[in-house]
Amino acid sequence: MAMVGRSLLLLLVTLAAGHGVVVVAFDPNPLQDFCVADPTSKVRVNGLPCKDPAAVTADDFFFSGVDAPGRGATASRRYGFTAVSVDIPGLNTLGASAARVDVAPGGVFPPHYHPRASETAVVLAGAVYFGFVTSYPDSRVVAKVLRRGDVFAVPQGLVHFLHNNGSEPAALYASLSSQNPGLVLVADALLAAPLPVDLVAKTLLTDEATVDKIRANFIVHRS
Amino acid sequence: MAMVGRSLLLLLVTLAAGHGVVVVAFDPNPLQDFCVADPTSKVRVNGLPCKDPAAVTADDFFFSGVDAPGRGATASRRYGFTAVSVDIPGLNTLGASAARVDVAPGGVFPPHYHPRASETAVVLAGAVYFGFVTSYPDSRVVAKVLRRGDVFAVPQGLVHFLHNNGSEPAALYASLSSQNPGLVLVADALLAAPLPVDLVAKTLLTDEATVDKIRANFIVHRS
Amino acid sequence: MAMVGRSLLLLLVTLAAGHGVVVVAFDPNPLQDFCVADPTSKVRVNGLPCKDPAAVTADDFFFSGVDAPGRGATASRRYGFTAVSVDIPGLNTLGASAARVDVAPGGVFPPHYHPRASETAVVLAGAVYFGFVTSYPDSRVVAKVLRRGDVFAVPQGLVHFLHNNGSEPAALYASLSSQNPGLVLVADALLAAPLPVDLVAKTLLTDEATVDKIRANFIVHRS
Amino acid sequence: MAMVGRSLLLLLVTLAAGHGVVVVAFDPNPLQDFCVADPTSKVRVNGLPCKDPAAVTADDFFFSGVDAPGRGATASRRYGFTAVSVDIPGLNTLGASAARVDVAPGGVFPPHYHPRASETAVVLAGAVYFGFVTSYPDSRVVAKVLRRGDVFAVPQGLVHFLHNNGSEPAALYASLSSQNPGLVLVADALLAAPLPVDLVAKTLLTDEATVDKIRANFIVHRS
Amino acid sequence: MAMVGRSLLLLLVTLAAGHGVVVVAFDPNPLQDFCVADPTSKVRVNGLPCKDPAAVTADDFFFSGVDAPGRGATASRRYGFTAVSVDIPGLNTLGASAARVDVAPGGVFPPHYHPRASETAVVLAGAVYFGFVTSYPDSRVVAKVLRRGDVFAVPQGLVHFLHNNGSEPAALYASLSSQNPGLVLVADALLAAPLPVDLVAKTLLTDEATVDKIRANFIVHRS
Amino acid sequence: MAMVGRSLLLLLVTLAAGHGVVVVAFDPNPLQDFCVADPTSKVRVNGLPCKDPAAVTADDFFFSGVDAPGRGATASRRYGFTAVSVDIPGLNTLGASAARVDVAPGGVFPPHYHPRASETAVVLAGAVYFGFVTSYPDSRVVAKVLRRGDVFAVPQGLVHFLHNNGSEPAALYASLSSQNPGLVLVADALLAAPLPVDLVAKTLLTDEATVDKIRANFIVHRS
Repeated sequence: MAMVGRSLLLLLVTLAAGHGVVVVAFDPNPLQDFCVADPTSKVRVNGLPCKDPAAVTADDFFFSGVDAPGRGATASRRYGFTAVSVDIPGLNTLGASAARVDVAPGGVFPPHYHPRASETAVVLAGAVYFGFVTSYPDSRVVAKVLRRGDVFAVPQGLVHFLHNNGSEPAALYASLSSQNPGLVLVADALLAAPLPVDLVAKTLLTDEATVDKIRANFIVHRS
Repeated sequence: MAMVGRSLLLLLVTLAAGHGVVVVAFDPNPLQDFCVADPTSKVRVNGLPCKDPAAVTADDFFFSGVDAPGRGATASRRYGFTAVSVDIPGLNTLGASAARVDVAPGGVFPPHYHPRASETAVVLAGAVYFGFVTSYPDSRVVAKVLRRGDVFAVPQGLVHFLHNNGSEPAALYASLSSQNPGLVLVADALLAAPLPVDLVAKTLLTDEATVDKIRANFIVHRS
Repeated sequence: MAMVGRSLLLLLVTLAAGHGVVVVAFDPNPLQDFCVADPTSKVRVNGLPCKDPAAVTADDFFFSGVDAPGRGATASRRYGFTAVSVDIPGLNTLGASAARVDVAPGGVFPPHYHPRASETAVVLAGAVYFGFVTSYPDSRVVAKVLRRGDVFAVPQGLVHFLHNNGSEPAALYASLSSQNPGLVLVADALLAAPLPVDLVAKTLLTDEATVDKIRANFIVHRS
Repeated sequence: MAMVGRSLLLLLVTLAAGHGVVVVAFDPNPLQDFCVADPTSKVRVNGLPCKDPAAVTADDFFFSGVDAPGRGATASRRYGFTAVSVDIPGLNTLGASAARVDVAPGGVFPPHYHPRASETAVVLAGAVYFGFVTSYPDSRVVAKVLRRGDVFAVPQGLVHFLHNNGSEPAALYASLSSQNPGLVLVADALLAAPLPVDLVAKTLLTDEATVDKIRANFIVHRS
Repeated sequence: MAMVGRSLLLLLVTLAAGHGVVVVAFDPNPLQDFCVADPTSKVRVNGLPCKDPAAVTADDFFFSGVDAPGRGATASRRYGFTAVSVDIPGLNTLGASAARVDVAPGGVFPPHYHPRASETAVVLAGAVYFGFVTSYPDSRVVAKVLRRGDVFAVPQGLVHFLHNNGSEPAALYASLSSQNPGLVLVADALLAAPLPVDLVAKTLLTDEATVDKIRANFIVHRS
Repeated sequence: MAMVGRSLLLLLVTLAAGHGVVVVAFDPNPLQDFCVADPTSKVRVNGLPCKDPAAVTADDFFFSGVDAPGRGATASRRYGFTAVSVDIPGLNTLGASAARVDVAPGGVFPPHYHPRASETAVVLAGAVYFGFVTSYPDSRVVAKVLRRGDVFAVPQGLVHFLHNNGSEPAALYASLSSQNPGLVLVADALLAAPLPVDLVAKTLLTDEATVDKIRANFIVHRS
């Protein structure tokens, strides 16, 4: 991935790769009141193993910090957004996760999707052009300018995006229908992943020189 | 149900009984990009039938009005809370719904549960004592005072509550893991539902006179 | 919870908190012929880890004792019911559990629900008034007097109850659609859980003195 | 199918092919309190369409008649068993169904399976040899003699059977984890279905004359 | 099971009893990008534990060898078929598996079903009579002669079969909707499983001598 | 979408937008033996309504034509691939679909994903570089050169691709874990969807002139 992802989006990493504590939906049903993720377990299963229920406290269902923007690193500042993942171990097995996203004036949360979740997001401040792209072959754009107090829904797995065209910072709170929805930034998957340059050029219906020129702004992962 | 539910909680009604447009999770997976609820269909199925995809617009995924408290009726004013359900027809088949809840100083959103969803809620303003009760036989209270920017998670089907002990109005945005989570106010289920008075007295380990006295403040539904 | 739950309902405890061996429905699908719960495992996952399939015998799918009432403790005798949970380790991953319930003449199995299951119950002996309460805002009572050989179904997560108005002991066999449906006694969740008295009073639309009077008959859990 | 199935097992037919009101388990989750099957609907979906919720009564969740054996027709009398399906329209979307089965002394409920459900069964009267066969390649028999009050569990989709070796009639109540578990009698699938005789002979590792001899006791369906 | 299964079908064994890496369908959803089965784990759960994601390589999602028939042992040569299971550890949690099946001229893959999956199969070479039997009470045969490039679908849990009536070897590639669909050969379940001979005779509506004669060609498992 | 998608990929359209008869995995479980899609129904639900079971024939589970490449239109010839979707109405509710894909020497099936399915694919002829990209932030490429008889698995929702580097035409048969997996070509979602050019430029970390130059080779959908 480009410098963008590697450095500045680190907050999102804890969300996407973390304790399964982010947001999501359509997960398998729970088989007990709760199965709070145990960060010390070395067992790996679908989802996460649980800590001893007797040791569970209210803090296992709690997260603080959605009232302020996340501190982004260099890369996501380039895109102009930051994200704070809601890290709640108790969401393991509960089929949900959440995050706060801030987009600076002129910034974008570039087109991305969640492989395992639908999403709803509410605007906390500012205004933003928000929408999704339908699947092949239509590739329709279903989008609106949202303002404070507006909510928009994104179907499972569809590409969606945020663009702050205004002069005020925008903030949103997003809920996802899986404890670990996953995140794929589509430009990253094409240009920062270590794909052969000829494959990328054929994909973009362009020449390799143009691909190299664009990729110069991304930090291409080593294969 | 008591006057509480009948008159003032009407906003919640559209949520719980409406177009399946509230919040939720663990619903069956979708089988197409979207299946926007068709309010004109006379067919009744698990969930809701879809409108013609060609007629779908961004407004089908959009709701406006979470930036202000709902206008509550007499009854929920008695409890001191109002609710605005996020009415988005496009949430049909997407396994999610949402609502804004406001609780006045001294008010409560009394103990309730959602038969078909887990919930996460973020505090938008004010402070509130928020928590859930574990299932039998423990009946533990897992709760905290939440402030602006705090998030709390409630496992599927467990009783939870809000109590605004402070002097500021409190506002929350709640996400649920089903398109139609359902709502059961436990006091209502015991005291406003047309259950025989002797059954209620035995349930509360008290006498029928005490039940009648308490029920006088509820509007008991006709059987 | 009140003395009721703590002492006399202990049989139910093994059902609700035990080896996931009670009844249930809508659980995740199994991924092998069987995954018999291993009581010696220290690994905690959604559901229960499995014992070595080579060590599985018919006894892992077997339970004896539904032909007689359970021996209840002091508390549930006060309500007038006892319960025997069907403890079958082989039900792990199979999405089902079961229990026998006996209700003495004049007794009740007070309003309760299962957060993770629907239920069907058949009357083995006697007669009983059995039904459920629909969700908010209707709070309809859907109920009937059942006699020997009658079956009644309860939707997932709805409050339901048994009341033996007759002069004969009543016995039922209940099937649930989850290996661990969970049990919430709604009076317990309100009155035996260590909730603040002012919250309970506001919930019951009454004063704190009345709450204290009612709670005197429950054994309130320590917070 | 043989005369067995066609005539005497007709009660089971209503269960397996009926209003989806029979058995149970692992079905999609419900999206409303209930979706009572509407017998008059001409719409066909996965499961069954619902009747108007306002027209729903307690009788939609009720079935009477599990206290006595079903009246079997000629064919199942040959096997020595009868079955009564629990026909409850309200079980649509609830992931469960049930049936009473009676087996005469010397009779069998021959090896069968449910393509869409696990099963638990409790013995109401008599004694019976009950068990299941594990899948390929082990084909283990996991079985026990059950008596009154005993419960046995059968994993999803595995072949199971009842054999009444005793001198008393046996009666059981079976719960299944799907609203429409389906029923496949394995001897029927091999010998009563209109399969080519050479295929059946190769399957049974025998000659066509032996197949014809055995099939003479079945009523082979017309292709 | 008969000599057939024990010796010659051993390839299928690794499929049905192996690392959960064979077939597929309707399994619980994944909660991370992948959970590659860890063959060294001693933990047993629903499905299989995962290896360290950092150690995952492309080989974990790869299988080679579907371009040639499997080498069958004595027993399945008697039936005239061989099978190669697609052993991909990365299919754990992905709800799918696959196998190549070859049927010699005159051979059969005898009637069988998968307790946890639906199936689609494409003919790679030759021709074959392929179909399934509907459930009780219809027992309809839904079948066709398939040729190279034809695809046929089999609903979850229904009995299906292959019969190569032609003079050319037939080869198919089958996809299943579970990581571990399971396999039940119905003749095996009746005749190779250690069921009491009187139960089998009653099931086949024949006498015990005929059962013994047929069973002589199977290798009956020891109980 | 570009001319590519509009004209030449039309075969894929029937797959992605057709009778729900294409691909597969993790769909809701079936509630009857089968629910064959009824092309004449005007009712729209999650998935598709069923035709009368009495009218179902073997042809409803059958598709012919996977033995030859599909005839592609202008656009997909530019990418160098064609696709044939396996159009089987009986796959409705069965959680599966399939397609044949051919890639000419030098051609690609450009990076894409299925929002609702995992995939396995077997190589029928030729050789192809096949793999997937893991989700954010790793964006690892997990890929191999596959040859005839090789199988590769792709987790649900991840971006994957085919590149025929060789001199022989390549052909694959792909199975998906949903009846309607959906298809998103990521370059299309970025460049052919009617997104504002400034949003696309910011997404690609490039200038609008470069975006316009690349888009000239796509047929941008009208908004």
